[in-house]
Amino acid sequence: MKKISAAELKAFAVQVFTGCGVSQEDAETTAEVLVTTDTWGVSTHGTKAVRGYAARLRVGGLNPKGRPKIDREGPGWAVVDGDMSLGMITSIFAMKVAMAKAKVNGIAMVTVHNSCHFGAAGYYTWMASQENLIGMAMSNDIPSVAAPGSKGAIFGSDPFAFGAPGGSHPAMNLDMSTAVVAGGKIRLMVAEGKPIPDGWLLTKEGKPTNDGTMYPYQASLLPMGGYKGYGIAMMIEVLAGMLSGSQVRDKIGGWLDEPLSKKTDHGHAFIAIDPKVFVGLDAYNQAMSTMVDSIKKEPVVEGAKPLLIPGEMEHHKRAAALQDTIPLGDDVIEYLQTAAKEASLPLPKCLQ
Amino acid sequence: MKKISAAELKAFAVQVFTGCGVSQEDAETTAEVLVTTDTWGVSTHGTKAVRGYAARLRVGGLNPKGRPKIDREGPGWAVVDGDMSLGMITSIFAMKVAMAKAKVNGIAMVTVHNSCHFGAAGYYTWMASQENLIGMAMSNDIPSVAAPGSKGAIFGSDPFAFGAPGGSHPAMNLDMSTAVVAGGKIRLMVAEGKPIPDGWLLTKEGKPTNDGTMYPYQASLLPMGGYKGYGIAMMIEVLAGMLSGSQVRDKIGGWLDEPLSKKTDHGHAFIAIDPKVFVGLDAYNQAMSTMVDSIKKEPVVEGAKPLLIPGEMEHHKRAAALQDTIPLGDDVIEYLQTAAKEASLPLPKCLQ
Repeated sequence: MKKISAAELKAFAVQVFTGCGVSQEDAETTAEVLVTTDTWGVSTHGTKAVRGYAARLRVGGLNPKGRPKIDREGPGWAVVDGDMSLGMITSIFAMKVAMAKAKVNGIAMVTVHNSCHFGAAGYYTWMASQENLIGMAMSNDIPSVAAPGSKGAIFGSDPFAFGAPGGSHPAMNLDMSTAVVAGGKIRLMVAEGKPIPDGWLLTKEGKPTNDGTMYPYQASLLPMGGYKGYGIAMMIEVLAGMLSGSQVRDKIGGWLDEPLSKKTDHGHAFIAIDPKVFVGLDAYNQAMSTMVDSIKKEPVVEGAKPLLIPGEMEHHKRAAALQDTIPLGDDVIEYLQTAAKEASLPLPKCLQ
Repeated sequence: MKKISAAELKAFAVQVFTGCGVSQEDAETTAEVLVTTDTWGVSTHGTKAVRGYAARLRVGGLNPKGRPKIDREGPGWAVVDGDMSLGMITSIFAMKVAMAKAKVNGIAMVTVHNSCHFGAAGYYTWMASQENLIGMAMSNDIPSVAAPGSKGAIFGSDPFAFGAPGGSHPAMNLDMSTAVVAGGKIRLMVAEGKPIPDGWLLTKEGKPTNDGTMYPYQASLLPMGGYKGYGIAMMIEVLAGMLSGSQVRDKIGGWLDEPLSKKTDHGHAFIAIDPKVFVGLDAYNQAMSTMVDSIKKEPVVEGAKPLLIPGEMEHHKRAAALQDTIPLGDDVIEYLQTAAKEASLPLPKCLQ
């Protein structure tokens, strides 16, 4: 474990991306998303991914000069072509379009095709909440999750995020996988040599296993809540995949898999809603503050702290990380060190 | 168990509602929703509820002459006042408004306050799918589900439904509770004398129990997937409650609880999306057909049938029920017989 300041971590990520031909502006935007995710303690979706993105940027599986653009649009909707640029660049672009349209229209939805892995879905919903809007974000991905009764993987561990202004409290921000657990958590436990709990993994014969090294090629995750996680993943495939014209299910490319030079064509969907339009911002903020206050007063089981609001733990971790440093596990440090090596960059002091 | 034709069941429900002062048209609309739900085999949310709705209609906790109306609206949104009419009347009204706006706008959202229990959320999303639209429907409800770490119930088992046209297949229609299991299922198992499985119920001290008779007053349900179900329920509280101006959490009235003469003020949210606007209906239908075809070919565990699409089982049950009769459990028959008695109606032949 190492403790690294947000500024140092961001500077390093920017250096890797610009070294791959990404503009200074796009490199900074992408690094900001990833470092913010690290400050939340969500290290599976933070700068750990820099190495994988860089590998694609170098061989053409991501376009360092890509410019996302609107294919088609109307007052409350748009379809965006990601132009194979970094998923974070395209997703911020798309969420901003959704947010601007929602302010006029009450609600707006923007779908994205020709994109790749977009990091943490919760970044884009948090972005909306910081401008007093409600946001939803979702993405499809290569199959890694079984369905009730299947032997193999049917859908990705497709993420779903929902963010909303918190009134007098920090923003609510839910970011969840539709698998029983995120695939990144399995990789992390394997790296840490931990066994995988019952009910998480299924072999290709549809039998339970606790061997995390079998994931993702020899084992699938189980869906969250059985048919519910399977159903929500299918919803995401419809909204992010079919309504964007991206690839769907096993036709999507794995962002960490060969061929790294070929586009993955992930699809995303972003929805923004303006509470001001529906009920006025004051009424909304008051209702949210009152609800959170009342939840904080609910009795908890012995030894537990007051109930958490989704995103609250991440909010406090971020505040501490910005005040001081971000604690990053050995798995992340190793990826960052390899990223430096592969980019032929001298190892920065913070990673030594 | 009795087998009743859809026509006889509907005629009986219409008779009960008109006897409470509901217009013939509204009685037929409401009965159609409930009987359709019964044909799907979802008997917890079908005509079993007639008795409870009638009890409220008689004493003013539902307004038999209520007319839902739009409070405020814009091109892509509306807020509807349910006027304390039957939840089904208001919800069909609201979903129709959302559908009409989505056809122009790509996406639209309509929230509802001053409503009550709205039956099966999946009815409204199915309605959208029958007109080549995608739908989402959700409702808040009185707390019955614990949060991770809580002793008592925090949110309702708030339903979330998603429906989408199925291309060459029946519509996809997901209708799920954000609790680990729907409360109605607990009531049903209690009625059938079955024990409640582990991991479903928590006492007021936050301890596990298998005693279904403790639900809902002495025990809460557990949320689906831990913090995920808790988070989705909070999302529903924001969209259906705060964006409609309805009551929230423990301020909502229980639709089966005293005082039956007081409004419950549930909130709902309906979202409609037009795939035609985003990618064209042909491209959408082709993508959906291809995906479902490919899922149907996936290998399944020994003895299992091909994977199901959400709503598919209900679709086939409905076809069989319309061809022949609807099989209704003793719990439903008992409620219907009591409804006849309380309405001072002669017991119809099908219930004898």
